[in-house]
Amino acid sequence: MVETPVKVALLGCGVVGGATASGLLTNAAAFAARAGAPLEIQSIVTLDPESVTDPTIPRTLLTTDPHAAIQGADIVVELLGGIEPARTAILEALHNGASVVTANKALLAEHGPELYAAAKNAGVDLFFEAAVGGAIPILRPLRESLAGDRVTRVMGIVNGTTNFVLDEMATSGGSLSLDAAVAQAQELGYAEADPTADIDGFDAAAKAAILASLAFHTPVSLSDVAREGIRSITTDDVAWATTTHHTIKLLAIAERTEQGISARVHPALVPNEHPLATVHGAFNAVWVEADAAGPLMVYGQGAGGTPTSSAVLGDIVTAARNRILGGAAPVETQRADLPILPAEAAESQFQIRLMVEDRPGVLAQVSGVLADHGISIDSVRQSAACHDAAGSGASVKDAESVGSATTHLLIATHHASEQAFAATLAEVSAQEPVREIVSCIRVLSM
Amino acid sequence: MVETPVKVALLGCGVVGGATASGLLTNAAAFAARAGAPLEIQSIVTLDPESVTDPTIPRTLLTTDPHAAIQGADIVVELLGGIEPARTAILEALHNGASVVTANKALLAEHGPELYAAAKNAGVDLFFEAAVGGAIPILRPLRESLAGDRVTRVMGIVNGTTNFVLDEMATSGGSLSLDAAVAQAQELGYAEADPTADIDGFDAAAKAAILASLAFHTPVSLSDVAREGIRSITTDDVAWATTTHHTIKLLAIAERTEQGISARVHPALVPNEHPLATVHGAFNAVWVEADAAGPLMVYGQGAGGTPTSSAVLGDIVTAARNRILGGAAPVETQRADLPILPAEAAESQFQIRLMVEDRPGVLAQVSGVLADHGISIDSVRQSAACHDAAGSGASVKDAESVGSATTHLLIATHHASEQAFAATLAEVSAQEPVREIVSCIRVLSM
Repeated sequence: MVETPVKVALLGCGVVGGATASGLLTNAAAFAARAGAPLEIQSIVTLDPESVTDPTIPRTLLTTDPHAAIQGADIVVELLGGIEPARTAILEALHNGASVVTANKALLAEHGPELYAAAKNAGVDLFFEAAVGGAIPILRPLRESLAGDRVTRVMGIVNGTTNFVLDEMATSGGSLSLDAAVAQAQELGYAEADPTADIDGFDAAAKAAILASLAFHTPVSLSDVAREGIRSITTDDVAWATTTHHTIKLLAIAERTEQGISARVHPALVPNEHPLATVHGAFNAVWVEADAAGPLMVYGQGAGGTPTSSAVLGDIVTAARNRILGGAAPVETQRADLPILPAEAAESQFQIRLMVEDRPGVLAQVSGVLADHGISIDSVRQSAACHDAAGSGASVKDAESVGSATTHLLIATHHASEQAFAATLAEVSAQEPVREIVSCIRVLSM
Repeated sequence: MVETPVKVALLGCGVVGGATASGLLTNAAAFAARAGAPLEIQSIVTLDPESVTDPTIPRTLLTTDPHAAIQGADIVVELLGGIEPARTAILEALHNGASVVTANKALLAEHGPELYAAAKNAGVDLFFEAAVGGAIPILRPLRESLAGDRVTRVMGIVNGTTNFVLDEMATSGGSLSLDAAVAQAQELGYAEADPTADIDGFDAAAKAAILASLAFHTPVSLSDVAREGIRSITTDDVAWATTTHHTIKLLAIAERTEQGISARVHPALVPNEHPLATVHGAFNAVWVEADAAGPLMVYGQGAGGTPTSSAVLGDIVTAARNRILGGAAPVETQRADLPILPAEAAESQFQIRLMVEDRPGVLAQVSGVLADHGISIDSVRQSAACHDAAGSGASVKDAESVGSATTHLLIATHHASEQAFAATLAEVSAQEPVREIVSCIRVLSM
């Protein structure tokens, strides 16, 4: 045990910062044993000292000045969120020779390469396990455990709010609308008053950029991630998914193809027998496919102050040990530098639901359009309403509202590029017997 | 990139060793980029050079002498298995200043503390991610990601053979016996000709010792692990489990109580809604509960040459990076040194199935015995046979064979110690209306 304490500056004292400070202060002896030296909080930055009411946190540690707070610190823990002043403070800390722990997904997705380079130049650690999947250990396994393997695909349920909302819609049996489920999530504290960052997939997209960067050793930023949120998902979509033995999940996908990297976020129909379909409530999970390891999944709590502080504290202990023992963990490399594919080149399977005239020849006409564009059909299902397809209790209002001479046509395709599919869909839509393209959802291919 | 190669000695060239050697040799450029220097295999030890038929492995690298093979190596990779000559070779390698990577669960379970101490004295890495859960990253998360948290329980499906066997029995709907399922596993290469190490829980027990040591920072060896295999599990047990919405799994459990550590292996009834119940076939999964993180699960392929080589190669790359950059990963600590509870002090919930006379007063008599021993009852179920309880198609032969005047009594208890439960069971067995204690299986408490 080293006697000289490792000095920690904590930037941010919100829900994660407060839990981190409280953890370090109330279990000081345990942390000293784990790290090999006492961990001493030298300062805690908060813009609103009045908001810190945790009695375990001494008021004397609080300051509003990040620049002053980090001077002399061995480890700087950045939990402010957002781009500035977080970016400037981290760069200054690294320049000063401090190791940095952060949970700032937005900053990493925007400025990751700049931060990795600064850490490498300074020869210090930059850890950010908490930035993706909260308490779930996913980044360390990607950085280290799979360092001898070749990752081909990462698919994550990385946003607890949207998973809670979709799960509530599914378990309600198709009676709960998206808006009602969001309201419920807000009431329970799973969603912000303004749920845009979650519902429209911005949060998941930042995490997709980080996952893609680590998995493929290539700088991938937020602007490289194609993004579609869950706002368009209806009760009928959920009911039809149940009928066809799927569960709708918002997935962050990072995929390596022969042409390059695809990073994207969109809702997907996950087959019920896939482990990702069994991830309920606000839980997160990340599925990884690698050449040698095959499929792997990590699962746990993706948000919340205390669970997220577990990942932050693990990073702090590792950084402290490295400072005491000498050495630093390997920093991110951009050695592969694979091309990043444009959004329209990404390939998926699709399920489209059409409202068409109920007469012979319509299926032949629609499937002919797909064939003309080289898109193969995996399966077709025709029925007046969801409950006709499998006896579920789903609504029949769609069929009624457009008259009895129409029927639903549910077409699942094989892989097609976004570009080819969009062109096909436009032509399908123009066919005379097609009344409406009711929905179009991508399908997770196993 | 450093030009001087990192020299690797590979001890063992079986299914995992062969895949590891082949991986390093056929992807040399990729590994050089990952590690920061070329990784050069200087020798491969095999007792039977004739058995090495992989054309990617040059015959000139093969030797039968571990002592000669490791001289001058930077990293020694031990994949011989068993205690000797593995132990001597690893200790010599560490003494020489080489970093060591091993997948040898039996050795670690028996001599872990000796090896950790030797690595610490030498200031080098000792990695063994592949020893538990094959490709699944579980040891690195336990050692590092959760270093700032307090683990309270680890429960793993860590033996693919027994999981395959139990899964086959369950999906057959109670028609496949244990012996038939084992024969099937042998045919498919999931079980050895002599399945004792798997079926009787020895393999899982070694892994339980390793998991308990890392989770609780206390030396736990194989002899500290209470062990019960799956040999006693019958088709009726499986059918009854299905009826009561459970799945039988062989679990390796490491648990921290106020009194100390309990490490054990036994079959358990896992509620179907628990994620561990959804782990099928030869897959492995480890469930971890920690104070701050809450529940976590990692899932993947727990065996097989190629998946296991992914974990070995990840450890090799990390060890190589540490040698190039300076520094070593933290070694195992035994700083907590918690007391290890004797087997009879472990607490579980139990489900017992009794064949009793079918007349009034029997339930009162039996439950009175449990109450006298201070064991509370969670639920009771009475029926002539499994299919009476839930309309399943299970066999009624038990009820027929002992006459129509008997019935099954299925009792689930609250927590009780093994000792208290054994005493109670003996007294239950002695009750006049109790014809037979048909089975007794522990229940995973959520």
